[in-house]
Amino acid sequence: MNFASDNTSAAAPEVMAAVQAANAGSAMPYGNDEIMDRVRARIREVFEAPEAAVCLVATGTAANALSLAILTPPWGAVFCHRHAHVQEDECGAPEFYTNGAKLVLVEGAHAKMTPETLHRAISGIGQGGVHNVQRGMVTLTNATENGTVYFASEVKALTAVARSFGLPVHMDGARLANAIVASGATPAQMTWKAGVDVLSLGGTKNGCLGVEAVVIFDPARAREFELRRKRGGHLLSKHRFLSAQMEAYLAGDLWLRLAAQANAAAARLSAGLLTVPQASLVHPCEANAVFAAFPRAGHRRAQAAGAAYYLWPDDQSMEGPEGEALAARLVCSWSTTDAEVDGFVSLIRG
Amino acid sequence: MNFASDNTSAAAPEVMAAVQAANAGSAMPYGNDEIMDRVRARIREVFEAPEAAVCLVATGTAANALSLAILTPPWGAVFCHRHAHVQEDECGAPEFYTNGAKLVLVEGAHAKMTPETLHRAISGIGQGGVHNVQRGMVTLTNATENGTVYFASEVKALTAVARSFGLPVHMDGARLANAIVASGATPAQMTWKAGVDVLSLGGTKNGCLGVEAVVIFDPARAREFELRRKRGGHLLSKHRFLSAQMEAYLAGDLWLRLAAQANAAAARLSAGLLTVPQASLVHPCEANAVFAAFPRAGHRRAQAAGAAYYLWPDDQSMEGPEGEALAARLVCSWSTTDAEVDGFVSLIRG
Amino acid sequence: MNFASDNTSAAAPEVMAAVQAANAGSAMPYGNDEIMDRVRARIREVFEAPEAAVCLVATGTAANALSLAILTPPWGAVFCHRHAHVQEDECGAPEFYTNGAKLVLVEGAHAKMTPETLHRAISGIGQGGVHNVQRGMVTLTNATENGTVYFASEVKALTAVARSFGLPVHMDGARLANAIVASGATPAQMTWKAGVDVLSLGGTKNGCLGVEAVVIFDPARAREFELRRKRGGHLLSKHRFLSAQMEAYLAGDLWLRLAAQANAAAARLSAGLLTVPQASLVHPCEANAVFAAFPRAGHRRAQAAGAAYYLWPDDQSMEGPEGEALAARLVCSWSTTDAEVDGFVSLIRG
Amino acid sequence: MNFASDNTSAAAPEVMAAVQAANAGSAMPYGNDEIMDRVRARIREVFEAPEAAVCLVATGTAANALSLAILTPPWGAVFCHRHAHVQEDECGAPEFYTNGAKLVLVEGAHAKMTPETLHRAISGIGQGGVHNVQRGMVTLTNATENGTVYFASEVKALTAVARSFGLPVHMDGARLANAIVASGATPAQMTWKAGVDVLSLGGTKNGCLGVEAVVIFDPARAREFELRRKRGGHLLSKHRFLSAQMEAYLAGDLWLRLAAQANAAAARLSAGLLTVPQASLVHPCEANAVFAAFPRAGHRRAQAAGAAYYLWPDDQSMEGPEGEALAARLVCSWSTTDAEVDGFVSLIRG
Repeated sequence: MNFASDNTSAAAPEVMAAVQAANAGSAMPYGNDEIMDRVRARIREVFEAPEAAVCLVATGTAANALSLAILTPPWGAVFCHRHAHVQEDECGAPEFYTNGAKLVLVEGAHAKMTPETLHRAISGIGQGGVHNVQRGMVTLTNATENGTVYFASEVKALTAVARSFGLPVHMDGARLANAIVASGATPAQMTWKAGVDVLSLGGTKNGCLGVEAVVIFDPARAREFELRRKRGGHLLSKHRFLSAQMEAYLAGDLWLRLAAQANAAAARLSAGLLTVPQASLVHPCEANAVFAAFPRAGHRRAQAAGAAYYLWPDDQSMEGPEGEALAARLVCSWSTTDAEVDGFVSLIRG
Repeated sequence: MNFASDNTSAAAPEVMAAVQAANAGSAMPYGNDEIMDRVRARIREVFEAPEAAVCLVATGTAANALSLAILTPPWGAVFCHRHAHVQEDECGAPEFYTNGAKLVLVEGAHAKMTPETLHRAISGIGQGGVHNVQRGMVTLTNATENGTVYFASEVKALTAVARSFGLPVHMDGARLANAIVASGATPAQMTWKAGVDVLSLGGTKNGCLGVEAVVIFDPARAREFELRRKRGGHLLSKHRFLSAQMEAYLAGDLWLRLAAQANAAAARLSAGLLTVPQASLVHPCEANAVFAAFPRAGHRRAQAAGAAYYLWPDDQSMEGPEGEALAARLVCSWSTTDAEVDGFVSLIRG
Repeated sequence: MNFASDNTSAAAPEVMAAVQAANAGSAMPYGNDEIMDRVRARIREVFEAPEAAVCLVATGTAANALSLAILTPPWGAVFCHRHAHVQEDECGAPEFYTNGAKLVLVEGAHAKMTPETLHRAISGIGQGGVHNVQRGMVTLTNATENGTVYFASEVKALTAVARSFGLPVHMDGARLANAIVASGATPAQMTWKAGVDVLSLGGTKNGCLGVEAVVIFDPARAREFELRRKRGGHLLSKHRFLSAQMEAYLAGDLWLRLAAQANAAAARLSAGLLTVPQASLVHPCEANAVFAAFPRAGHRRAQAAGAAYYLWPDDQSMEGPEGEALAARLVCSWSTTDAEVDGFVSLIRG
Repeated sequence: MNFASDNTSAAAPEVMAAVQAANAGSAMPYGNDEIMDRVRARIREVFEAPEAAVCLVATGTAANALSLAILTPPWGAVFCHRHAHVQEDECGAPEFYTNGAKLVLVEGAHAKMTPETLHRAISGIGQGGVHNVQRGMVTLTNATENGTVYFASEVKALTAVARSFGLPVHMDGARLANAIVASGATPAQMTWKAGVDVLSLGGTKNGCLGVEAVVIFDPARAREFELRRKRGGHLLSKHRFLSAQMEAYLAGDLWLRLAAQANAAAARLSAGLLTVPQASLVHPCEANAVFAAFPRAGHRRAQAAGAAYYLWPDDQSMEGPEGEALAARLVCSWSTTDAEVDGFVSLIRG
């Protein structure tokens, strides 16, 4: 029962098989492998973007930080939600890669910006002078850090705000597959058709070993990305092993099937927990994570049984009355089974 | 017949099997996997360094640039050979990760610094004032970019020069296994016993999919490395797949056997080419690369047959008299076969 | 009637005379001038800090950004008030000089942090892991951007919080003289005796042409500052002209007399405005700036008469009902005269 | 007798008077002072460049590093002479401001690049891939660090090489006035008409207190410069004091008269020294510096008499035979008198 994160899950068998298959014979390095040609073509097809540039890296932080670095100058303000991964979980990688851009935090419930909060944040950074940083770009996360989802229409409303200020938009799609499955949008609808300029398309958390695609809808931006990727040490020499993962991940829409499994597990977990007395949701469960509060007694039973997950926020204490509710983050992955979910719920219920 | 680089080779079966085996069930992310505990212990054993810190990354550029960043301040001079990988092939990653340290180039035949050239370079950077950059650190590459090897005694002589100026030393060991096999030194003799502070220990070019270990002999430096690794986007979430590669790579000294195969293939290739009329070596063949010159006619036959390799330097032309000798770089890997070598030599001989 | 900023004021005659006097004959450059020896001694005397290192630069932004850069690593969180100059008015200089540290904003009325808000902000940045930035340092501004003042006891309470987390403290004293005069503390009480590690001591706004001293109470930090200053292009070659300003500024406590004049002007202005019907203060007037609201009619008369100042915040409109109050920032300097103040108040009163 | 550097000299009386005059009343800060409007107009007139943007900073290092930062990306190679000030005397400021661009050193006697050496250096950086840094820009110094001068035709020949590779060109004109006087070129001929894109126009060494103008011939580049200037802490608030210096400096061609005086002093010194037995020039004396070798006995006499100058290179020893020649750098300024020169020569002659 590991709900600590979707990155504790294994790789999907199809992905692992592709990695193994890619190991036959020699291959050109640094993205010049033949598999990469197919990956590029497939991503263009999936996203209905025949001109898009595609680059692979091994981590989500690299995908995000490099994307930001091609969209904002060092003196730019990067507008993101207060709880965005780029703000809270990348140890300043955005500041490092952009040479010191400033993340400006946008409010909003459940880790979602609204057009109003975004507009207010952008407006708050004056323009024209040289004394403050300049409006640089917007980055949004879908699915969010709170397990919620922006619908394509919501993305569009946010990018419209950005566009009204002339700002480009990045989407951190470490869990894009979960958002697409949850919302019913097509990949194109969710991204460039909704105004996204550059996308971090996650593979790692959803069945790969370690691969993220950066999709650059305006290919004129791609050369700079490639130079920054190399300079950042993120161009893998035996690149075919990245390509192979991504090829298998997208083949036959495996990525969406894996995400659907993860989302279904979370839905089952959410529903199950809500049958527990005094349990409640902290955030709507829309993708593959459940943020729920339930009595300390349940936590004790779960932890005694070896269940892995985080109290969220992390300043709650396991010491205290049995009946008091503590909030937790429970993340499901493609490999979470019904048995795990049901077992966990049973433990909580006691 | 692919002699373009050792990074065109496949992963060794043992390594691939380990990756596959690591995919069972869930595992803690970000280097907290159990395999990493065994990797750490194994590297400490292999290097006779029970206190050493060990971090894994996916590329050699990351290993090098992060290592430099913990050894020099931004205003430091990094002394390296004129043809070092950090100078010529990393698109400025050292400058990026160090926030602008200056690489100061050291002369020496066959890509090897000598104590004299190193001493001269360090002395050339005055100290005490604030107008020039300050002496920062030394980095040396073993095996070198020219396929030559520093013996442990040579490493010691260079680090003694560094030490006399109070400078720490990094070794770029992307091909350390080849150097160890070639020289007969133990891993400890070649590194910390010879005065190396931080080592980039290559796996990728020698039978892995993509993994390098950074071995930090003074563990007090490790915390900064870990923060810089995360901030650089080089901390893999599904870290077990890095760990598994490295575990298999070092198990039963596989790494040295693979390097021995590569070195033997290069020796066979070198010897074979020297039987060709008018052929000669440009650099001594001491590890797994052959730098040889032979008539243009031979190049034409080889290229017509699909052999992959680089003219070196790259400003030579395939246009010209048949008999004129052109220099080439030919890199062997663990997977290079005698048949490939012999076939190539036959083509060259004509 | 120029209340736009204290930096619109002229240099004090004593300072200008010193600059002129310093121009006799040749002088060693780069801070090796003899005047600098006297400046160093004088600052040590004034601050009762016989070991302190002293460096001069020409701008407050340089003083602040360089100070931050020696106190926090690139992955550090810099805790500062939401309206600190380093956050709002330096175009990202702190991020640039620190290589990407993250400013974490602390709440508090009238641009003042409280021990509670500071504690909360620091606690909010978890420690030990590598995923978020690490607690780095605290910087506070005295007098503040809102014209308020931290008393020495308040500074001490804030640095105690910093110290409890092991963090060093910088004080942006662009207007330190105003704060000292306002609070009655000695320079030592206000700074190192209250726990400040590095001080930006402003001269420019208070009667100099352009000079700020950085006072580094632990001289072990000074060498790095000097290298960063040079590397930042902030080491003036004809340094005597900085030294001469600072010498005259501190001689006979001129700096405190000038600040007293500025504070008195602000007090007179504040008192005068409060006699105007419907006028009110937005922030307490404790140093040399007045933040006051008064009817639009008054603004119209003042602007028609050529008075220079800023509506604050700047999104207020001069269009609208006569009687509606608009807030303004009015900054006095050492050279503001009673006549200017009284004339302005008369205009506002109408 | 101070020949240590031209930056040990005083400011010219006209410049000092202008600074004093500028101190009347209040003035808008940050470059919005009225004097700056006149400076801009005057520089456009002097350089026959009616569209040029003009920015002032207080140091030559700032002028250079900021100029480089707007002309090269972080992954660019900056081609400069091996002995350029940006390489040897700025403590890595170019690397800092460009976020890690790489200075690639160009050979050439007497600190002058030639079209051939520049072409070879640029050609040596391969293009198109991502593994090495990319060709970024060229920067040349006039007058040079060795006291030699590029004629306008020589500048043109170098910029033609740069242009043939599509690279922009910066001129470090810390001593441009000396070069203009020496060569007879007009300011326009020496700069934009010869292919220079951005110019650092020195004032400090030639009679100012501390001011350099950056002249950006393509004004589209100016906005970025202004933001980088602010972010670098180089936008002075009481900017009028920079403006006033530059206005006086250019008025009535004072700058050229001052440079003519300095050049004449150097010519007199050079001629005088050549009358000393065993004395010789190390570099041609073309501007305001003399690089000469003469017997150790002469050095001893000069130093005993308190003459200030540097042995050049600095690893020569005052210990040794009387008759052995040691090389020195002797820099004249606008304020060097014939008496000083003749007195020095007498000392050397003995």
